[in-house]
Amino acid sequence: MSPPLTLGLDADDTLWENQARFDFAQGNLRDLLSPWVDGEVVDETLLNIERNNVKLYGYGVKSFTLSSIQAAVELTKGEMTADLTTAIIESGWGIIEHPVEILPEVAETLEILSDCYQLLLITKGDPTDQYKKISASGLSDYFEGIEVVREKDPNTYLELLVRHNVDIKDFVMVGNSVPSDVLPVLSIEGRAIHIPHHSTWGHEQVDESVVESLTFPVVDSFSQLPDILADLPKS
Amino acid sequence: MSPPLTLGLDADDTLWENQARFDFAQGNLRDLLSPWVDGEVVDETLLNIERNNVKLYGYGVKSFTLSSIQAAVELTKGEMTADLTTAIIESGWGIIEHPVEILPEVAETLEILSDCYQLLLITKGDPTDQYKKISASGLSDYFEGIEVVREKDPNTYLELLVRHNVDIKDFVMVGNSVPSDVLPVLSIEGRAIHIPHHSTWGHEQVDESVVESLTFPVVDSFSQLPDILADLPKS
Repeated sequence: MSPPLTLGLDADDTLWENQARFDFAQGNLRDLLSPWVDGEVVDETLLNIERNNVKLYGYGVKSFTLSSIQAAVELTKGEMTADLTTAIIESGWGIIEHPVEILPEVAETLEILSDCYQLLLITKGDPTDQYKKISASGLSDYFEGIEVVREKDPNTYLELLVRHNVDIKDFVMVGNSVPSDVLPVLSIEGRAIHIPHHSTWGHEQVDESVVESLTFPVVDSFSQLPDILADLPKS
Repeated sequence: MSPPLTLGLDADDTLWENQARFDFAQGNLRDLLSPWVDGEVVDETLLNIERNNVKLYGYGVKSFTLSSIQAAVELTKGEMTADLTTAIIESGWGIIEHPVEILPEVAETLEILSDCYQLLLITKGDPTDQYKKISASGLSDYFEGIEVVREKDPNTYLELLVRHNVDIKDFVMVGNSVPSDVLPVLSIEGRAIHIPHHSTWGHEQVDESVVESLTFPVVDSFSQLPDILADLPKS
């Protein structure tokens, strides 16, 4: 008999709302900067700054807040005020302090999945943010391992599977991000299931042509996972 | 024969300079704010803000930069400017981009220690900052494990020793911080060696009365470690 499957589950926007919190804060930033520039200019400037800053700062709320302050300095052309700075910092606190909002049917489905599979929570980002949310979610007992990684690249997956003594053939990753949860796992000959979320960060969007040549299951809802996994062909 | 000792080694201000970078940035902040307030007021305000923000932000450069911006908003009483904001953000980049400066005799001593002991690097802080420094240090090959933890509390040590299959009786922690590297390890009946550093963050300073009742080796220099360890009584 082959060993049971291990499921890797992404957290942000797979188990709970995340991008919506950042979108809300970014909406605040657009409002705050509306005396100077249009919303689209704010979005574009912020995304460029965030892309540059990922190398220095990594992901997460602190990185987003610092990038937002930089965008405001740039777009207000010397008219940055103390009140504006404080409003941006407080908008970041709003992301951190917002209660964790578990996505529909996630808790019930994890209960079912944890009976049949070994579950690993695999999330990237700022560990201070991530552990706060994991702890507040009340879901951590379903997981046999929790991994907060810097980047979800093929090596990261290989390394953590070695540590958990899981063969890549027995591993299926589940998440909302094609570049982070699907492509790197397929590239090391693992399997992945995509659960799209209504809102995706610009930095995580993927060139459609890359995906066209690949086949992986795409499901609408977390509750479909037990059936999809039961029907998955043997690796 | 008893199993060989495992040494836990702290990184910031034990293997390489760290606090000096933050002190330099804090000196910049004092200069930038000198038109408004004295240096001591800057130090005191910043430390209070940092203490509050640790819960929200954790440790590291991003956290320090955001706290510095908040201190500037508070101390300039509404006169915060774009240039001042940019100068504080760039001062934080200075910490990130500064080359890693290995402390004297560390590399040679690690070479000797790694022949006799299993070495684990155990550091707390922002993983983006920490992994950048570990990678740039060129020292990572001496270590059989690298652990970037959120807090160095007794549970963190216990948990990582279980993962590395090390009995607490066979573990000695080495570092510059009494509250992070010494006290939590003694509290779980491990052993620790203190190597004081010339500069210690206010948040890491410890009440002398707590330490008076405890006995642990204190050494002046990293190069004394092989001798101290050879003379350590059996646990």
